[in-house]
Formats: sequence, C-alpha cells, structure tokens
Amino acid sequence: MQAYRALSTLFGRLRALGDAAGILGWDAQTIMPTGSAEGRAEQLAVLRGLRHDLLVAPATADLLAEAEAERGTLRPWECANLREMRRAHATALPGDLVVAESKATSRAEMAWRTARASSDFTILEPHLADVLRLQREVAAAKGAALGLAPYDAMLDQFDPGLRLARIEPLFAELRREIPALIAAARERQAGDEVLPMAGPFATAAQKSLGETMMRTLGFDFERGRLDTSLHPFCGGATGDVRITTRYHEGDFTRSLMGVLHETGHALYEQGRPAQWVAQPVGEARGMVMHESQSLLIEMQACRTREFLSFLTPHLVETFGRDDPAFAPDNLHRLYTRVEPGLIRVDADEVTYPAHILLRFDLERAMIDGDLAVADLPGAFDAGMRELLGVAVPDDARGCLQDIHWPSGAWGYFPTYTLGAVAAAQLFAAATTAEPSILPGLAEGDFTALVGWLRREVHAKGSLLSTDELLTEATGRPLRLDAYLAHLHRRYGGTVH
Amino acid sequence: MQAYRALSTLFGRLRALGDAAGILGWDAQTIMPTGSAEGRAEQLAVLRGLRHDLLVAPATADLLAEAEAERGTLRPWECANLREMRRAHATALPGDLVVAESKATSRAEMAWRTARASSDFTILEPHLADVLRLQREVAAAKGAALGLAPYDAMLDQFDPGLRLARIEPLFAELRREIPALIAAARERQAGDEVLPMAGPFATAAQKSLGETMMRTLGFDFERGRLDTSLHPFCGGATGDVRITTRYHEGDFTRSLMGVLHETGHALYEQGRPAQWVAQPVGEARGMVMHESQSLLIEMQACRTREFLSFLTPHLVETFGRDDPAFAPDNLHRLYTRVEPGLIRVDADEVTYPAHILLRFDLERAMIDGDLAVADLPGAFDAGMRELLGVAVPDDARGCLQDIHWPSGAWGYFPTYTLGAVAAAQLFAAATTAEPSILPGLAEGDFTALVGWLRREVHAKGSLLSTDELLTEATGRPLRLDAYLAHLHRRYGGTVH
Repeated sequence: MQAYRALSTLFGRLRALGDAAGILGWDAQTIMPTGSAEGRAEQLAVLRGLRHDLLVAPATADLLAEAEAERGTLRPWECANLREMRRAHATALPGDLVVAESKATSRAEMAWRTARASSDFTILEPHLADVLRLQREVAAAKGAALGLAPYDAMLDQFDPGLRLARIEPLFAELRREIPALIAAARERQAGDEVLPMAGPFATAAQKSLGETMMRTLGFDFERGRLDTSLHPFCGGATGDVRITTRYHEGDFTRSLMGVLHETGHALYEQGRPAQWVAQPVGEARGMVMHESQSLLIEMQACRTREFLSFLTPHLVETFGRDDPAFAPDNLHRLYTRVEPGLIRVDADEVTYPAHILLRFDLERAMIDGDLAVADLPGAFDAGMRELLGVAVPDDARGCLQDIHWPSGAWGYFPTYTLGAVAAAQLFAAATTAEPSILPGLAEGDFTALVGWLRREVHAKGSLLSTDELLTEATGRPLRLDAYLAHLHRRYGGTVH
Repeated sequence: MQAYRALSTLFGRLRALGDAAGILGWDAQTIMPTGSAEGRAEQLAVLRGLRHDLLVAPATADLLAEAEAERGTLRPWECANLREMRRAHATALPGDLVVAESKATSRAEMAWRTARASSDFTILEPHLADVLRLQREVAAAKGAALGLAPYDAMLDQFDPGLRLARIEPLFAELRREIPALIAAARERQAGDEVLPMAGPFATAAQKSLGETMMRTLGFDFERGRLDTSLHPFCGGATGDVRITTRYHEGDFTRSLMGVLHETGHALYEQGRPAQWVAQPVGEARGMVMHESQSLLIEMQACRTREFLSFLTPHLVETFGRDDPAFAPDNLHRLYTRVEPGLIRVDADEVTYPAHILLRFDLERAMIDGDLAVADLPGAFDAGMRELLGVAVPDDARGCLQDIHWPSGAWGYFPTYTLGAVAAAQLFAAATTAEPSILPGLAEGDFTALVGWLRREVHAKGSLLSTDELLTEATGRPLRLDAYLAHLHRRYGGTVH
C-alpha cells in the first residue's frame, strides 16, 4: 500500500496546484485588472510547469509500477484511482511539446480575436495552421501512449474511452433525423407568436433572480459563487465552485438560462464524492457527462412547462410588474423556438446538433490532412448550406465564431451533442424512477431530481467509464432513443 | 554569468509562486466562500512547500556559490540581487520546522479568535506557549545562519539589517519624550470640540470617494483594485496590487483614512523598479520602509490642513450635503485628536508609540525567557498603566487585541513606530527639496510628493539597506529629530 499512499499524496498536491490555477483563472476572467494579464500568464505557466514536472518525475513512474504490482491489496475505488493516475501519467506530453503548444495556442487565440473582430480569416490562418500541426503531434504522442488513432486520442482527452467508432453511428442517425425534426418543429410553430419582453431589467434584479434559482436547484453558496464575465463558465476549485454569467438590461432570458445551465455544471462539481474529491478518481467523468448535467438542467428540466410555470411569479416579483410576456406559455414558446441560424451558441435545441456535425466533419478532415486550413471558410459555408440551409455571409459568423480550434480544443465539439443525448437518457430514467420529479419542478422542488443525479452521476466521480456509468444509471449505454423521443415530444414529427 | 542567470530564472519562478499565493490570500480575505477555507489552506501550503523545496534544493546552493565566485562580472544591481538571493537561501528554515511552525500558528490563530471573543486568555495560553517555543527555535536557526542574537534574527525577518542595538537608543528617547508630548497635546486640545458627523454615509458613496482619493494619489487601477475585507490590508501580486477597507455607514472617516494609509503601501508596491520587479532586489526594502510609506501618506500628508481643505468639497459632493462637520478645521481636530486608550489600532499618532514600546518590551522578555506566557496579561496591564495611565479591564482589550504573536510575527511591532519615524524624516526631506509639495496637497496635487517618493524610495527596491536608503534620500540614517519636531509642531510642547 505504501506506493499507492505516496501516489495519493502526490496527486493530492497536483490537485491543489490545479485548484490554485482554477482560482487564478477565474480571477483573470472576472475581476483582474487589465494590466495584470502578463503577470497572471506567468503565474499560471509556472504552476502548470511544476505540475507537469511532478507528474513526469522518474519517481512517479516507479511508484506507479510498484502500486500496480500491489493492486490486489487495493479496494475498487483505489484501483480506479490508480487507473486514472496511470492515465494522467501516460498522456503527459513531453515538456517541449507542452511549451510549443501553449505558445502556439496563445498566439492563435490573440490572432483569433483580431480576425473575428475584422471578420478576416486570413489573419488567423497561419496561426491556426501552427496549432493544427502541433495538435497532430499531440494526437500522435497521446495516441502512441494509449495505442489509439490520432482522432481517438483527441476525443479521449475530453472523455476518456470515447472513440470515433462509438460516435459515428450515433451521428449518422442524427444526420438523418435532424432535417425532418427541424421541418416538423417549424411547421408546428408556424402560427406561434412570442410576445416581446418590455425591459429594462436591472442587473441587480437579474443577479438576485439568478441566485434565487441557483438556491432552488440546490447550489451551495457556502462552497461557491455567482459572478460576471464576458463568456459564461463554471470554474474555480474543488469545494469552491464559481459560475459566471453576463447581463443585458434589455433581455434577462438568455442570462437566466445561462445561469441555470452553469448551475447544472456546478451541481456536478459540488456533488463529486467527498472521500475522493482530491484524487483523480473523484473528478468529474469527462465532458460528455459534464455537458449532460448542464443540459439536463437547462434543456430537460428548465424548459419544461412545469418549471416555467414556477418561474413566472418569480419574474413578476423580481421585476415588479406583471408583463404578459412572463406567462408560462409565452416563456415556453420563447424557450423552445426553432429557427436555423448562423451562430452555434445562439442555436436552439433542434438545430444545435447540425452545428456540431459540421464541426465534427471539418476537424476530422483537418486532422486527417484531407482539408487544408486555407480551405476552411469555403468548407464551413458549404456545410452550413447543406446542414441548415443557411449561407455564411462573412467569416465572423462562419468559421471564426468559435475559439475552440485556435485554443487547441480539437475533439471537443462532439461532447456537446453527446452530452445532450446523455441528458435526455438520464432525465428519462430519473423521471421514470422518481415520478415526483416533473410535478416537483412546477413547485420549484428539485430535491428528487438532484438527489437522483447526486446518487447516479455526481457521487460516482471517475469510478466508471461514461458508458458504464450510463448503464448503471439508465440500464443501457449511450443511445439516441430517449433524445429523439424528447425532441419529437417537444417539437413534433414522428420517431422513425 | 551563467550561474547568476540560472538563479534569476529560479527566483523569477519563486516570485510567480509567491504572487499566486498573494492572489489566493487576497481572495481568501475578501470574497472566498466560507466553506472553502480548508481547501484554500491546502493550496497555499502546497505552494509554500514547493517554493521552499525549490529554494533549498542542492542545485540552488551550488548556483549561489558559483555566482558569488563570478561576482566581479556583475553590475551593482545584480550584486545586490545576489546578496538578497543568498539571504533568502540562508534564512530558509528546515522543512520540519516550517511545517511545525505553520501548524502551531494556525492553531494559535484559531484559539486567539475564540479567546478574544470570550475575553479569556487561558484559551490562547497553551497555543501561544507552543508558538513561542517554535519562534525561539526559528530565531535560533536564523540567528545561527546569519550570526545574530535571537531577537536580532527576528527583527531581521521584517527589516533586513535592523538590530536591537539600533532600536534601543531611539526607543529610550521616545520613552522619555512621549509622556510630555501627550500632556502638551491634551492641554492644547482641552477646549476643542469636534463636531459630530450626521450619517448615514452610503457604502457605495464611501467607496467612490475612496477610489477618487486613490486616483488623486496616483494609484494605478490598471494594476490594482479596492475591495472590502474585515481587516484592511494591501496585498495581491506584483503588478496587481489590491488594497481593502471596511465600511461603517455611520462613520466614513476611519475607512477613508484607512484607504489613504493602504494607498501609501500600494504606491510603494506599484512603484518598485520595473526592471527588477520579479527579482529579490526589486522587492520593497522591508516593513520599516513599507510602514513609512503608508504613514507618510496618512499621517504626514493627509492629516495636514492643506489636504483636509482639499477633502472638504469632495465630502460635500460625495454625500450630497454641506455638513458643518466637513469643514477643514473640524476634520483637522478630528484627525489629530489625542486621547490615551486601550486599543492600538484605534490610537492616535501621539499615544501610538506607547502601545509599541509596551509590545517591544513584552516580546523581548518572552523571547529571552524573562516573562512566562502565563504572566502576559498581568504584565500587559502593568505596562498600560505605566505608559498610558489606563487600566486594562479585560484580556480582549488587553493582550488579546492583536493577532501578531499568535500568528508568529515576533519582532514585527517595532517596525510600526520606526516606520512613523522614517515617514517624518522622509516627508521633511521631500518638502524641503520640493517646496511645491505642501501647497500641492491643498489642490489635491500629489505629483511632486509621489514623484519624489518614486525616485528616492520606491524605485530603489532592495538595492540598499534601510539606513543607506534613508541616508541617500534625506542625508542621514534613521533619527528621531524630524519625527519629534513634527509631533511638537502638530501637537504642542517643546523639543528637548
């Protein structure tokens, strides 16, 4: 047990370093003075470097080998912890590749901001080509360590165990279903009118509403915060989970739904297994499960008529007036409106997967060398026409809209839609197991739902793979049926 | 030069780790959720441990020896930097003593909170005895490394080069002068009436006033912030200087003066030499100089009739009314009122040194083994009667009022009064060299004063010792004359 104990101590220190970086990163995106960016980058680079050095130290390799030899003395959670430790060690990149990648993505992110502001892809192009070249090196290195093909190695970074062969049939089926779903939704919604909201909606009132809803969902403010940032996120540290939103005084509806979405992420983080919270096995399973938790709250629970009918009186009270646009039916029409558009983050639940399918196709083609970076804008436009029937008017609203590729997050996009699929599957299982969940939402009572998620998902940490976790919770691995059934129920059409 | 270059890189990383800890510490005292304290303590302990390991690594000792052998090739700033590196390395404590001290002070700080709340010294006593025992070990270890007596080693931690023999004659003279000064001030102020302020003073208005004053003094908000905490402090990181205050809606005067005080600290931090800011030689010289900067701003500059006459119209505008209590004369009476009292942090400029003399006597006696911890309350009371003529009614308002001893800051108290002395000496030299300074304060123009401080103090970093720095700036090492002259001018009596 001695080697395992030593590894536990080591990974506890790595966790503390990661948590320190988490708070510093949160600070940088929320309240840091603008002139402190360079110093902060240096602090984060030093923390990352020390973390890397500790992880790849020769002593760590020795301890792993020793601990694996004594595996028979370990309990199941400890075995899973050791597996996650080995994984972290095996996929640690050579130091010079880490530095090269970090520099290339920093440069590309900066170029991306300029390129997007002026809607000029050529500004980003050489930097994105650098990032792609290094991503292929990263994929090769991680693939070699894990015995995986390059794109599988990229997927595996964000969801351990996720493979292209697992995604392809799911996405092929989605590709067939989505056009009919969009058509059905648009036909059903053709006569609907969404009443506009009469603002302004004071920021302080919106914040108070957001905090009330977070409390309603069970967010623990003793171990977390709500703040403001340009791009909403869930961050912070173990036991200090900080979500953000942004406010527009003319419209509270997107900010509020953003808070509910991030609260879904936060509940996962706050619900990780207490005994293992500082160890690798205590971390959230991966981005598919993480996104499933935010989308389960946002899409499955909070866009229901039940929850929206609970919300209406809170809107009346918060904003001090009884706007007819606050009525549950109107909120439901607003929050389920389907309309093909250019921007992924603005997309509704039905057209969203099309944005993901396009990015999934394009990033694989680039990784495989079948699509040159220079040809990305044209391919993006062609894909948008084919999948959603819309033409891209400029790069800013086309292939420059997302930061993921410049920032090195290749293999990430599929987790959004897989998360939506998992969310539907989990919600269906939860509402079947606990019939009180849906009526509870109408009363703002999330205890049954969140209790079920705590037990079936959050408290499992990284003990199981995503498919194993889903099988334990829902009786089957990830499948499309609950997701498609949900979309058809909410938007019309028939399940094929 | 190669060894020196390697050391520069190493100490730059140590600085980044210290800065990361600075932001995490700021966060803990301002906005951290209460439930995150344990995790934060772990993060800070890991950062401190890594910093210590890097500092005492055998490679560091080798590099220091090599760099010292090539000292002839270094420029003066580099030599001073190497001297500071050697000092940091020599005074690094054995790892087990660091851990033992850290645990003992954490326990004693917790016990102190309970003890103070219930005004019961016996709750703190065993923990304080532990801290004292370890402080004596620390003093012995640092003393051995530097060839110093134990109390000198403690002083040296907070102000490199400060020695008991340097303090004793200054404090002996002060001990003679203070009673007459207090008597003279009280006689002169006997008929004065301070008009009370009619609140409430909204927190948002107070904050805006504080920020205006910070801008007036030259605080750079691109590289710093103002926030709220229970105990005001100046913290943060290199290039990200964060000060705090606390607000009482019934009284703005103490919070405002606190902001001005912390701004003095912050200007020092923001004015450290840009080229050396990440190196040991680029740090502030020590606590005597640091306190001199806050007290120069607070006591020397901002309690003058000139500055207070500038302040009055800002108060009228900020609080939207013309209270007769805002008149410059009334502010001056308020801000220079002398009255012996029990609490150090509430003390006026004239009685303050008495509180320090008492603590200086008591901490030396405890370190030397001449005063048992159990006898501290009685000795504290006896000292208060003798020095200020007030009796201590309970431990909370006696020896439990300060956190310094439980938290391990022995040898720190003298720097408050030495800082006040240095402030007077610097202000006298500055106003002599630049006659526009005092009239400038009446216009809210701090450029001449802060410009002088930037050149003569801030930009020197740790190049010189405190006495060398004062000699370059004022023509003489630290002396009492300017300080006593200032007190007599402001409070009456005659210089002996």
